[in-house]
Amino acid sequence: MTADETITREGLAARDVADPLARFRDRFVLPAGLVYLDGNSLGAMPRAAARRVGEVAGREWAEGLIRSWNDAGWIDLAPRIGEKIGRIIGAAPASTMVADSTSVNLFKLLAAALRLRPGRRIILSEEGNFPTDLYIAQGLAALRGDGHELRSVAAADIPAALDENVAVMMLTHVNYHTGAMHDMAALTAQAHARGALALWDLAHSAGAVPLALAAAGADLAVGCGYKFLNGGPGAPAFLHVAPALQAQIRYPITGWLAHAAPFAFEPGFRPAPGIAAAAVGTPPVLSLASLECGVDIALEAPIDQVRAKSLAQTALFMRLVEERCAGHGLAIVTPRDGQRRGSQVSLRHESAWPIMQALIARGVIGDFRAPDVLRFGITPLYLRHAELWDAVEVLRDILATGAWRDPRYEARRAVT
Amino acid sequence: MTADETITREGLAARDVADPLARFRDRFVLPAGLVYLDGNSLGAMPRAAARRVGEVAGREWAEGLIRSWNDAGWIDLAPRIGEKIGRIIGAAPASTMVADSTSVNLFKLLAAALRLRPGRRIILSEEGNFPTDLYIAQGLAALRGDGHELRSVAAADIPAALDENVAVMMLTHVNYHTGAMHDMAALTAQAHARGALALWDLAHSAGAVPLALAAAGADLAVGCGYKFLNGGPGAPAFLHVAPALQAQIRYPITGWLAHAAPFAFEPGFRPAPGIAAAAVGTPPVLSLASLECGVDIALEAPIDQVRAKSLAQTALFMRLVEERCAGHGLAIVTPRDGQRRGSQVSLRHESAWPIMQALIARGVIGDFRAPDVLRFGITPLYLRHAELWDAVEVLRDILATGAWRDPRYEARRAVT
Repeated sequence: MTADETITREGLAARDVADPLARFRDRFVLPAGLVYLDGNSLGAMPRAAARRVGEVAGREWAEGLIRSWNDAGWIDLAPRIGEKIGRIIGAAPASTMVADSTSVNLFKLLAAALRLRPGRRIILSEEGNFPTDLYIAQGLAALRGDGHELRSVAAADIPAALDENVAVMMLTHVNYHTGAMHDMAALTAQAHARGALALWDLAHSAGAVPLALAAAGADLAVGCGYKFLNGGPGAPAFLHVAPALQAQIRYPITGWLAHAAPFAFEPGFRPAPGIAAAAVGTPPVLSLASLECGVDIALEAPIDQVRAKSLAQTALFMRLVEERCAGHGLAIVTPRDGQRRGSQVSLRHESAWPIMQALIARGVIGDFRAPDVLRFGITPLYLRHAELWDAVEVLRDILATGAWRDPRYEARRAVT
Repeated sequence: MTADETITREGLAARDVADPLARFRDRFVLPAGLVYLDGNSLGAMPRAAARRVGEVAGREWAEGLIRSWNDAGWIDLAPRIGEKIGRIIGAAPASTMVADSTSVNLFKLLAAALRLRPGRRIILSEEGNFPTDLYIAQGLAALRGDGHELRSVAAADIPAALDENVAVMMLTHVNYHTGAMHDMAALTAQAHARGALALWDLAHSAGAVPLALAAAGADLAVGCGYKFLNGGPGAPAFLHVAPALQAQIRYPITGWLAHAAPFAFEPGFRPAPGIAAAAVGTPPVLSLASLECGVDIALEAPIDQVRAKSLAQTALFMRLVEERCAGHGLAIVTPRDGQRRGSQVSLRHESAWPIMQALIARGVIGDFRAPDVLRFGITPLYLRHAELWDAVEVLRDILATGAWRDPRYEARRAVT
């Protein structure tokens, strides 16, 4: 649609009919009466996941018991799903593995990065990066001692901060708070030009935006299974190590599944060749099986179509907010430039918390991010354009009527 | 039964009828025609687990979506299950947490232990400890540098090896290979007398033998959810930190769920008070929910009854093997002294691999541990005495007929 075309719900419904991704919506369970705009926090459930988890429990575990590690291929799940995610993120073959949580994988790769750049003391990151990235770096720097430290600078200052003391530049590709997206190739090249490694957190990117880790020359990456990959609550995470680094890298956590011959039960650790050495312990099979269902859908969906629809939907949402919610103190935080934006829209409002609670109470599920942001994730695989119209109508009504000024929306909950 | 009483299958079946734990068998799914003696590797599936996992996927995830972190209490699962496991292992309240894998938890606690004993350089362990314990210690020592090292000695030499350079004594309570059990209280006291911390791996103990971590003065512990706790394949693991250490301990992996206010998204890490700081990242909810079902059964079963039946069944199995399989080259590895034995029987045989494959082909599921051990786990919650008779009959027949000398039993598989 052009900027001067009038938007109507009917027009949007017609776009949904013509949507080349429309067929994917039915691959997910979406409760009636909800507009789900939190797939960037927890993706919706693929129908296949419920079936698959039932089969893993009721047949593979219950009937197959220990034999299922071989007979049902449990032992292959983590590397196989890793390989599939590798294709989603544009990584070289045999460079991506599923293991642990994003936080643990960050620790593994950051610790390895410091060892690959001995003498350099700085982990360079961005102010406002997702806290676990900063915390993990702080914890590692404290563990290492020897003057290692995390240095966080504003996004614009990253290139200038890349000096000969930076061991690794650790950035989140799409910012969880603002939805702003970095230029991975450009920043990676700048890091390399100063001798630093580039570690990318793809938590808000994998499955949402086109990624080309190999082409960008990214050294290391981690990412999350339960956001745009729709892997299920707390799904295992992934990590990537560029092939050129695999022969030299030394992981800090050397668990038995990373051994060259785990079932030889040798007393001394010998790393498995390649990316297999990035594993640690026995992975949670039920959660892995669920993750694979989400990953399989992401592999099937043409990422260019996903991206085109994501850009159209984020632009639509911003325009509707501007047109229909003007004068209520909302500010759009997410970049207007599509090339600089991931797949979410963040709105700032001084009463963001109760407004989001009021939205949720009316079936529009986004989330709140401290201190003052309303966050709306756009998942093109299952989100309709007309739903964005409906969501903004609810937002408009809540703002116009002041319905959010209700004491019950003030109470904070554990997880937001 | 006394040593001179003749054992008959009928007599054993009568014992099964009188077994006070008999009612627990029906809480698990056990395939017809199998004798399952590998619950020390992967416990059988509680019937409740299949239901619960279906509910978490089909209702809490699919319908509740992100709201289930609060509304379905996902955020409380790991600490709640940890608290339950704490009761199973005889730990103080608020000292046990579910998180990550056993290997990752070992890393976290070993790294913390070295920081609690600065200046001491040795991680003391036992030759023949489970390899991941040794590998994790080796990896950590290499990461730390500064002369830190793993020193592994024979079990009998541990007390003498406890010198003023030992930071932490890391032992597995019940050995995975032999089934031999350490005296936790005595060794912990000896470690403390030399100023060392005691870290216990309870992988083959939790749910299988009475544990009293608080009474034993154990400082640190880790353990596994998928063995005698029947939590499901790759179920999340647990870790324990004695209350007296919780104010000083510094974990190396400081993820966002360990923050005092994870949803404040502060830029600097501040650890949560108490055991909550032992968390790292978002836990795998499907696998956690399954784990809780196994843990709940373990909490219900009186551990003294479990232990009495375990000792009777391990003794029975050894006696039947001696009486009925004599002359075929089997040697019993597991201690005869009940006080020194966990809940498994290990038999040595130079052809252990093909013999175990022949057993499995005939429905007797144990496992092989390199280089030459047949391992049989005893899970009193679902194992009948008469099944042990049947298992030994199959073993006797395989040995007497030489049925294991079949080429198809020679081929090794990925996981054994």
